[in-house]
Amino acid sequence: MSYRFQKLYEEKVFKDPVHRYIHVRDQVIWDLIGTKEFQRLRRIKQLGTTYLTFHGAEHSRFSHSLGVYEIIRRMVDDVFSGRPEWSEEDRLLALCAGLLHDVGHGPFSHTFEKIFNLDHEEMTREIIEGSTEINSILQRVGVDFPKQVSEIIEKTSTNKLVTSMISSQIDADRMDYLLRDAYYTGVSYGNFDMERILRVMRPRPDGIVIKKSGMHAVEHYLISRFQMYWQVYFHPVSRSAEAILLKILQRAKYLNETGYHFNYVPVHFGNLFEGNVELDEYLKLDESVLLYYFQVWQEESDEILSDLCQRFLNRHLFKYVDFQDQIHSEKLVELHQLFLKIGINPDYYLVKDTISDEAYDYFRYGEEDGKKPILLLFPNGELKEISRKSELVDGITGKKLSDSKLYYPHDLIYNEPDETRKKIIEIIEEIAGAKSR
Amino acid sequence: MSYRFQKLYEEKVFKDPVHRYIHVRDQVIWDLIGTKEFQRLRRIKQLGTTYLTFHGAEHSRFSHSLGVYEIIRRMVDDVFSGRPEWSEEDRLLALCAGLLHDVGHGPFSHTFEKIFNLDHEEMTREIIEGSTEINSILQRVGVDFPKQVSEIIEKTSTNKLVTSMISSQIDADRMDYLLRDAYYTGVSYGNFDMERILRVMRPRPDGIVIKKSGMHAVEHYLISRFQMYWQVYFHPVSRSAEAILLKILQRAKYLNETGYHFNYVPVHFGNLFEGNVELDEYLKLDESVLLYYFQVWQEESDEILSDLCQRFLNRHLFKYVDFQDQIHSEKLVELHQLFLKIGINPDYYLVKDTISDEAYDYFRYGEEDGKKPILLLFPNGELKEISRKSELVDGITGKKLSDSKLYYPHDLIYNEPDETRKKIIEIIEEIAGAKSR
Amino acid sequence: MSYRFQKLYEEKVFKDPVHRYIHVRDQVIWDLIGTKEFQRLRRIKQLGTTYLTFHGAEHSRFSHSLGVYEIIRRMVDDVFSGRPEWSEEDRLLALCAGLLHDVGHGPFSHTFEKIFNLDHEEMTREIIEGSTEINSILQRVGVDFPKQVSEIIEKTSTNKLVTSMISSQIDADRMDYLLRDAYYTGVSYGNFDMERILRVMRPRPDGIVIKKSGMHAVEHYLISRFQMYWQVYFHPVSRSAEAILLKILQRAKYLNETGYHFNYVPVHFGNLFEGNVELDEYLKLDESVLLYYFQVWQEESDEILSDLCQRFLNRHLFKYVDFQDQIHSEKLVELHQLFLKIGINPDYYLVKDTISDEAYDYFRYGEEDGKKPILLLFPNGELKEISRKSELVDGITGKKLSDSKLYYPHDLIYNEPDETRKKIIEIIEEIAGAKSR
Amino acid sequence: MSYRFQKLYEEKVFKDPVHRYIHVRDQVIWDLIGTKEFQRLRRIKQLGTTYLTFHGAEHSRFSHSLGVYEIIRRMVDDVFSGRPEWSEEDRLLALCAGLLHDVGHGPFSHTFEKIFNLDHEEMTREIIEGSTEINSILQRVGVDFPKQVSEIIEKTSTNKLVTSMISSQIDADRMDYLLRDAYYTGVSYGNFDMERILRVMRPRPDGIVIKKSGMHAVEHYLISRFQMYWQVYFHPVSRSAEAILLKILQRAKYLNETGYHFNYVPVHFGNLFEGNVELDEYLKLDESVLLYYFQVWQEESDEILSDLCQRFLNRHLFKYVDFQDQIHSEKLVELHQLFLKIGINPDYYLVKDTISDEAYDYFRYGEEDGKKPILLLFPNGELKEISRKSELVDGITGKKLSDSKLYYPHDLIYNEPDETRKKIIEIIEEIAGAKSR
Repeated sequence: MSYRFQKLYEEKVFKDPVHRYIHVRDQVIWDLIGTKEFQRLRRIKQLGTTYLTFHGAEHSRFSHSLGVYEIIRRMVDDVFSGRPEWSEEDRLLALCAGLLHDVGHGPFSHTFEKIFNLDHEEMTREIIEGSTEINSILQRVGVDFPKQVSEIIEKTSTNKLVTSMISSQIDADRMDYLLRDAYYTGVSYGNFDMERILRVMRPRPDGIVIKKSGMHAVEHYLISRFQMYWQVYFHPVSRSAEAILLKILQRAKYLNETGYHFNYVPVHFGNLFEGNVELDEYLKLDESVLLYYFQVWQEESDEILSDLCQRFLNRHLFKYVDFQDQIHSEKLVELHQLFLKIGINPDYYLVKDTISDEAYDYFRYGEEDGKKPILLLFPNGELKEISRKSELVDGITGKKLSDSKLYYPHDLIYNEPDETRKKIIEIIEEIAGAKSR
Repeated sequence: MSYRFQKLYEEKVFKDPVHRYIHVRDQVIWDLIGTKEFQRLRRIKQLGTTYLTFHGAEHSRFSHSLGVYEIIRRMVDDVFSGRPEWSEEDRLLALCAGLLHDVGHGPFSHTFEKIFNLDHEEMTREIIEGSTEINSILQRVGVDFPKQVSEIIEKTSTNKLVTSMISSQIDADRMDYLLRDAYYTGVSYGNFDMERILRVMRPRPDGIVIKKSGMHAVEHYLISRFQMYWQVYFHPVSRSAEAILLKILQRAKYLNETGYHFNYVPVHFGNLFEGNVELDEYLKLDESVLLYYFQVWQEESDEILSDLCQRFLNRHLFKYVDFQDQIHSEKLVELHQLFLKIGINPDYYLVKDTISDEAYDYFRYGEEDGKKPILLLFPNGELKEISRKSELVDGITGKKLSDSKLYYPHDLIYNEPDETRKKIIEIIEEIAGAKSR
Repeated sequence: MSYRFQKLYEEKVFKDPVHRYIHVRDQVIWDLIGTKEFQRLRRIKQLGTTYLTFHGAEHSRFSHSLGVYEIIRRMVDDVFSGRPEWSEEDRLLALCAGLLHDVGHGPFSHTFEKIFNLDHEEMTREIIEGSTEINSILQRVGVDFPKQVSEIIEKTSTNKLVTSMISSQIDADRMDYLLRDAYYTGVSYGNFDMERILRVMRPRPDGIVIKKSGMHAVEHYLISRFQMYWQVYFHPVSRSAEAILLKILQRAKYLNETGYHFNYVPVHFGNLFEGNVELDEYLKLDESVLLYYFQVWQEESDEILSDLCQRFLNRHLFKYVDFQDQIHSEKLVELHQLFLKIGINPDYYLVKDTISDEAYDYFRYGEEDGKKPILLLFPNGELKEISRKSELVDGITGKKLSDSKLYYPHDLIYNEPDETRKKIIEIIEEIAGAKSR
Repeated sequence: MSYRFQKLYEEKVFKDPVHRYIHVRDQVIWDLIGTKEFQRLRRIKQLGTTYLTFHGAEHSRFSHSLGVYEIIRRMVDDVFSGRPEWSEEDRLLALCAGLLHDVGHGPFSHTFEKIFNLDHEEMTREIIEGSTEINSILQRVGVDFPKQVSEIIEKTSTNKLVTSMISSQIDADRMDYLLRDAYYTGVSYGNFDMERILRVMRPRPDGIVIKKSGMHAVEHYLISRFQMYWQVYFHPVSRSAEAILLKILQRAKYLNETGYHFNYVPVHFGNLFEGNVELDEYLKLDESVLLYYFQVWQEESDEILSDLCQRFLNRHLFKYVDFQDQIHSEKLVELHQLFLKIGINPDYYLVKDTISDEAYDYFRYGEEDGKKPILLLFPNGELKEISRKSELVDGITGKKLSDSKLYYPHDLIYNEPDETRKKIIEIIEEIAGAKSR
């Protein structure tokens, strides 16, 4: 039998706390899981620095990727299979795309990408199409297969149905991460009835639609997403850790550029600092490697690098106040100067962080660049956008989500304050008082 | 107010998926959690290599330590407080001992200790009594306080009641890890009704006893333990990863001793390889550091070291067969020689692993070195050992738990087998056939 | 010690699937639970006819009443106790009011009250203040105590704080029933983090307020309520059963008034049919009594009564279509006449049911007769109404909830349709087509 | 298409708190659920008087029957389907037998059967084979089909595989009731991993066997059963209520036999009191009818009947002491006489209740009349009885479960005790002291 359809002699089962079991019957999937590029995801946390706020959130992108695969598998095998709108030929494509959609993520992904000007989606494409173990497995399925898979993930495929299974307002990716992040953080907000949603999904050429009878389950899912953003993903303490992380990498890059002599040379970052990235090198980077450097850099003579690394590892984070650009921009300039005056480099110790709209893809109907709306399928075959039927979705549609905070090292300012520090404190408390959220 | 009794201005709360919330009111506890020695536990997994079998088990000793603390806190504040047998003076001692009981663990603790002849209990003592942030906090409570805490953890204290809260057949440590490991692996075996057990615990000078009405909850807990051992802690696949880990460290040590020139010098292991360990150095060791070395050692020219590191990181584990010493010892000798013949070093590639009785502390009544039995408290004040009242406990008391496996690199033997390999395969299959468990 | 403060020798514990345990320490509470008026609540289902839609929802008002008591107990003992704004003297008052708030409910309460022009709140007052076992227990606490308790339940008390614990936008009653109804129906919508909400509640003279940090938990609770209404409480199938129930009682009353000779005389309804109700008689009525009559009335010679009873017991319910008053009132008149023409009495077989706004107490800010708004307490002591801070609550505030359905006996119309029936079918399908929800 | 294979146009789904959803695709199953004989099960509690101990346990045999059906459906459709050892022809037989296995139960079944010398299995047969709605549906499948179904339920069928799905050491009936009773009582003991067990079940001609890899899940299930018996099914308080129930029925029967003039004539019991039972009459009996009689009989002039009914409805139960036949038989005689002396009829007020071995079907290997053992299927095809491989099962095999209690009306003896009563108290306390369990 061709490799594409080859089944394992016995189904393999992974125990999973979120989906109970993850079932693998396809040889191709089993082989992909065994590749070193996929195993590397075990060393990259799903939620980056969030474990410093929610200590339970120590789960990896490996677990999440298996979870997305399993959801896709249930869609296909339990719901779509046998329906005229579904083609069994797309089955393996959907499974592989689900499994591999995050394979290009780097350590502490968002921050890392920002500093080194990388794009994990681009890296995912390179891993799938480049010279890797994953590629050679996908090649065995068909010479065009790697490209087909990466096009699904990149959303450039003409196969809109399979694309929508991975990337849409209600896709396998979001469903897994909401459930999984809720499970590991321990917050109850992310629980919705996925089993119900799967059962009311129907394949259509332009993407998945939802039977009208499942509307309330979808409402619940959308609200869960809304709450998880505020409760977990935008949590100011995790962002404080992220700010420090950003500054560590920024400092290391700067030191490298300015010829600083490292005791512990960042060999792993060589080309990255130059703005280049080789796939091979990239794949060697994981969070244990970064943490190793932070560990040893605590002993570097550069005080900023050393201090920031200590802060990150020992969780001596920055504190924060709410910040409003329109009101506080002058105060920020002033703080900048006062920091300089007391010898604290504001480029590293005064960090404004805005969680922008772009980072948040909550459902906004009608926006051109938005994700496709969720369509309800009525018994008579009609399709209607959900916010037209659901008062709840209507109520939250278009709600803007954004949050700005100013981070600073409380300890360096408040412990034994001199005159300048007292002035800084005064300004910070003014900012804090302006907005009480 | 003295530091010992100082309360936080507002209670701090950690969201915990197992206990829902972890409550901190004491300044001392808050300060201990903030130390770098305690934060280091975030970088040490609770279950070592188990995440390679149960992918969800990525939780750290940090989470577990908070959990043990919380259980102790509930015992004290919700159950013991106000009872004549309980002295409020022991409260902080119990809380600190619970929080810190695992602070001396190293990366992949069991394996690490075996190779470097270390003892995490000894390291715990050093961290508590040595020159550390933890020690200076405990010192502020009282000059003898660090010693009191470490004596509780070492079971040398005369305070048997507090000792039994951390170390006994049914202590806060075991209760947390069973619940937590069950939660993160996703197996259902470890769930028992801890809330019920806490409510029926009563303090007595020689240790905690259990009200008779809680017998069934205790039965359930003991059975959970029994099943978790077989299902999770003795899992042969995790032990395969552990075997490889052991061999990596053994090889690195050997190479160091024999003057091998490392591309990536194991500076962190300097003194360890010599058999010495400095507290400072030890505290720098965590699992990200080990994983970093395994990462870079993949490129060492020593083929054994490089191969074993690849196996560990990419989860190319050894396969196994059940092994019985009485029957198979000659076959093992034979295999040893056949391995040599085909150029595979049996010292690294043929590993017999026995999980011995000692590793397993399941309840065995009456054994001198055993843990103290669980005593039931009857309404009339009488105390009886539980297996005399519970048919279920009686049924499992004294059941021996041990398991021997022989691990080997299936790929090197079964792929393209020559004559010698065929002989090896024959022997392995004979061993496998002898015992079907 | 006075009866008011008398404690049980040993705490009594009820195993409860929703709150795990319900703890009783007060002799008064224990005695109240043992009264026959309270035990009667075991024979009245919490959700009336809902079990005919969600078969799991077979729980009684007894369970719910214990649950409300337990939530109040946790508020008082775990959160309020010791705070200056809380008076320990109100403790027993709050506990008793929580326990007894539903004690006046009759069988299938809403329908029953409608037909017999009763008010369960009035009955509650009579049970508490009249000649009952409950009253004599409350009397022992203090002669005015029964009145104090019933004033809390009736919302006429000057003690606004205790009143708000039982009756407000976020009270113990609502919290228990949302969690409990979700648990027993098996829908996941009603789950919110009650433990969190309890921890952020603060007593104030005018009622409970919520610490700002608990806003997201309250959002979750409000959304749960929103969804439970649509998913469970307004479920059209349960309302079909309720419509039949209403018509059974209406028919029996009519038959009684018109001198019909019952084979099974409704002795239990004697005075009720006359518009009077004696407390003694009322207390004998529970759902087993009603079901007994429905059982025997299946054999009455009156065909309408007999048929309706069979429908209810064997779950041969009416079917329904959505109905809009503005559009369909003429059609209803027409249907009425067509029903008469084929000999089906439309007074019993054509039922328009509108779930009105009044039945639904979802949060609407600013309406005069609305429940008091939920106030958030900021760190600086300020209080703000929640929809001003929460985008989510703002989004759903003022959403109108109402639903109209027309119920009819599908079997009598669609099986072997003649000309008139075909006309009826045509009209029903026109109505159905007009609105697709 | 023949009725046997007729599918619903759209799958029907019941929300179930235990199995999440119950799926019905077969017209036959849908029709059976709609019969009045099956709907009657809504009015019979699954656990009889247990709700008086565990207030949450108000669930009906209707819910349980749907649950058993669903488990069978999953076995067949998700696990057995397509395997050579399974014949699709048996599918409907298994589903119907699962759904209907308990349809013959009466109100408060065990007690009822004891008094009226009935057997619910016999009644089940009559309902399936007699003149009922259920029978006419089964007839449409095939003239022999009703008989085939009842033979499966009665364990007289030659189809041992399907029989074992309903009746064996690990069947759908037991799995549903353990999970369901645990859910509704709220005790945690009954939770085991049913999904896992289903996945390792394999059909064999003589009955279901279990793949070796599922051994631990089966251990967990067996232990759950063990604990549920002690914790829930043998609970002495529920048995007290059962004792009173028994005595009510015994008294009513006696009064009827001795010509007592009932105010509320027990018309529903007419033939039952004579020792006859007509199917029609039997089907009219449900728990609401019994509770109705208990309600009205509170006002009968016979003091014993009236008192016992009040006790049952208002939960004024008998208290109990442990009782040992070998030791206490003389004391029982003495108590009997003392009761007579103070005018309390010991035939109704002094009840020895022994839960005998027969009631308890815990696994005992090798006993001739025992249930068939659980067989493990090894990779090589070998079958071994589980207690030979599992130390845990071996440990509990053969443990005898039985419990004797003596019930008496504490209030009538202890309130204002005279000399005789003091003597009674003395004896009771002697008995109580003899055995401390």
